[in-house]
Amino acid sequence: MSEVYAARRERLRERCTAGGSAAALISRPANVRYLAGAAPQGAVLLLGKGEDLLLCTGPPGDQPAQGRLDEALRVQLLERPGGDPAVAAADCAGAQGAESLAVEEHHLTVARHRAIRSVAPRLRLADVGGAVEQLRVVKDEEEISFLRIGAEIADQALGELLESILVGRTERHLALELERRLVDHGADGPAFPTSVATGPNSGRRGHRPTDRRVEEGDFLSVCLGATYHGYRCEIGRTFVIGTSPAEWQIELYDLVFAAQRAGREALAPGAAYRDVDRAARQALESTGHAEGLPPLTGHGVGLEIDEDPQLAPAAMGKLDACVPVTVEPGVHLPGRGGVRIDDTLVVRPEADGGPELLTITTKELLAL
Amino acid sequence: MSEVYAARRERLRERCTAGGSAAALISRPANVRYLAGAAPQGAVLLLGKGEDLLLCTGPPGDQPAQGRLDEALRVQLLERPGGDPAVAAADCAGAQGAESLAVEEHHLTVARHRAIRSVAPRLRLADVGGAVEQLRVVKDEEEISFLRIGAEIADQALGELLESILVGRTERHLALELERRLVDHGADGPAFPTSVATGPNSGRRGHRPTDRRVEEGDFLSVCLGATYHGYRCEIGRTFVIGTSPAEWQIELYDLVFAAQRAGREALAPGAAYRDVDRAARQALESTGHAEGLPPLTGHGVGLEIDEDPQLAPAAMGKLDACVPVTVEPGVHLPGRGGVRIDDTLVVRPEADGGPELLTITTKELLAL
Repeated sequence: MSEVYAARRERLRERCTAGGSAAALISRPANVRYLAGAAPQGAVLLLGKGEDLLLCTGPPGDQPAQGRLDEALRVQLLERPGGDPAVAAADCAGAQGAESLAVEEHHLTVARHRAIRSVAPRLRLADVGGAVEQLRVVKDEEEISFLRIGAEIADQALGELLESILVGRTERHLALELERRLVDHGADGPAFPTSVATGPNSGRRGHRPTDRRVEEGDFLSVCLGATYHGYRCEIGRTFVIGTSPAEWQIELYDLVFAAQRAGREALAPGAAYRDVDRAARQALESTGHAEGLPPLTGHGVGLEIDEDPQLAPAAMGKLDACVPVTVEPGVHLPGRGGVRIDDTLVVRPEADGGPELLTITTKELLAL
Repeated sequence: MSEVYAARRERLRERCTAGGSAAALISRPANVRYLAGAAPQGAVLLLGKGEDLLLCTGPPGDQPAQGRLDEALRVQLLERPGGDPAVAAADCAGAQGAESLAVEEHHLTVARHRAIRSVAPRLRLADVGGAVEQLRVVKDEEEISFLRIGAEIADQALGELLESILVGRTERHLALELERRLVDHGADGPAFPTSVATGPNSGRRGHRPTDRRVEEGDFLSVCLGATYHGYRCEIGRTFVIGTSPAEWQIELYDLVFAAQRAGREALAPGAAYRDVDRAARQALESTGHAEGLPPLTGHGVGLEIDEDPQLAPAAMGKLDACVPVTVEPGVHLPGRGGVRIDDTLVVRPEADGGPELLTITTKELLAL
């Protein structure tokens, strides 16, 4: 496993060197984990002129760490309690003879940046930008296998919930129940706060569960995901409660279903992000639902639940093979409720069978 | 309620004006909530030369918001999707004729700071520092009442767990069970990830629950808290599993209990942070447990679980009345386990009966 992390660091080092910095300081936790195997709380990674170094505030075993640290990586503990590992790293970089240090300006605060400058005034501070996030976009097969297992866990948790009695239970309790089941089936934990939305709340993206109880005739929309070995997937489904859905419910469901299928079918290596978004979006816009549509219809997933790429109207770039993304259009009618359907898929070339669907729970409109 | 938030903003405005900035940009979510009543995702607060303004990426009702927004506050939605409310706020500040804008340098990233500078090049950017965090240290009676209810909820959840069968259950399941009970009793959610530590894991601060099962003879240490109306409290207890604790367990428990009591008894208006820390710490250090002690023995709580003040050896400052803090010394013996005892208390003058204990679960060593 150690080679994987060393290879990732090497790719980053090449980018930094090309950008004029021999050393880089990585502070964003998901990026530290990607390059070091684990991210003990507060730890930063120094890609030095010589050896790479993980700087921690205390022994990694004592810190809440996610993942398993690359054993080949040298770990240095901060001597001063309460010190900032980023400042200590800059100090090390200077001592190693680096003239320039690339930092993550989109993660470091102004105050920490200033502290680095004052401890290493001769070091020229540059910006590594989103270089690590870019490396993270295309996944290797092990990363995809973690996502696949996470999706299986989410499918299982959701499937079990559907077999239970739902009417009369609150959104909050259903959400907690789903999260417990995720852990039961081996997830590290939920990938994000589980969303359960009933009746007028249904179809709202990121709805936080309330004390509203499930009623006959409701739409019920659920969005959940498992974290497995740090990798986060997402599934969203909408159901109807009772024996038979109303006419407007069937129509709205069919519409969102068609939009979501169009988005899924647009996934291919080389497809522009905005074209995938448009495929999912246009069916909704053309039927009068332009207003209130979320700014994106899908996004990358991995060590974070919301990664590059963004599938949105103004997004620049094209999909590659082995990029996992969500496709999640939805419509919410204020006061009435709505529908969201959300899958995690991996972009694959047509020769390999096209997009690989990780979240396989049925998308038929189930009446529960 | 609106007057409370207006008064808080007025106090901040006075500080900023004294610091030479007529306008301030507050971006840290807990600070936004403190001053505006709620913090819709990504929203920032502009304390303008004239009117105050909350800048949001979308309608506040559509955003996961915590709390209830001050109705007297003007809300402005970003026109451009994907835009940064902080940048839009700087634009507004410039348009209002501000010459200087104080920002939260300890929260804003270098990249956002730069974007603000480029959109409003004539605006002098200053640092508001921890001004809002300082205002938040002393709580009003309503804030304390939220903490008190949260503590009651945490006591109830813990009490119910102790009545159930524990042997054979995993740390993870016990933690999930506690979190479910917190919500059952009316919490917004857990105040922080619930920690359940058994056997050799017991006594570790911030231990993340594993699949280890509770065994006869184990120490079991539990740390949990409820969020109620946004306010977060904390309680930690250690129990022994089985009919009678071992000699070393009784000794270690008594030691930590005495240290925690010394810390609690040191809480008084005017007491130096470091003296409270020393009171709790010295009993542990003098018995050979200096190594491995956590860097702090307590901290403030409120809208965040870890606020000012820090009760630590190098902390500067003195306690005021109406400051809620934790007192939470602990000892962990590698390979064997340990003890942590953690209460949330409110500093009160002796004339009012001294420190008010919010978390009232017994601190006797229970054998479960």
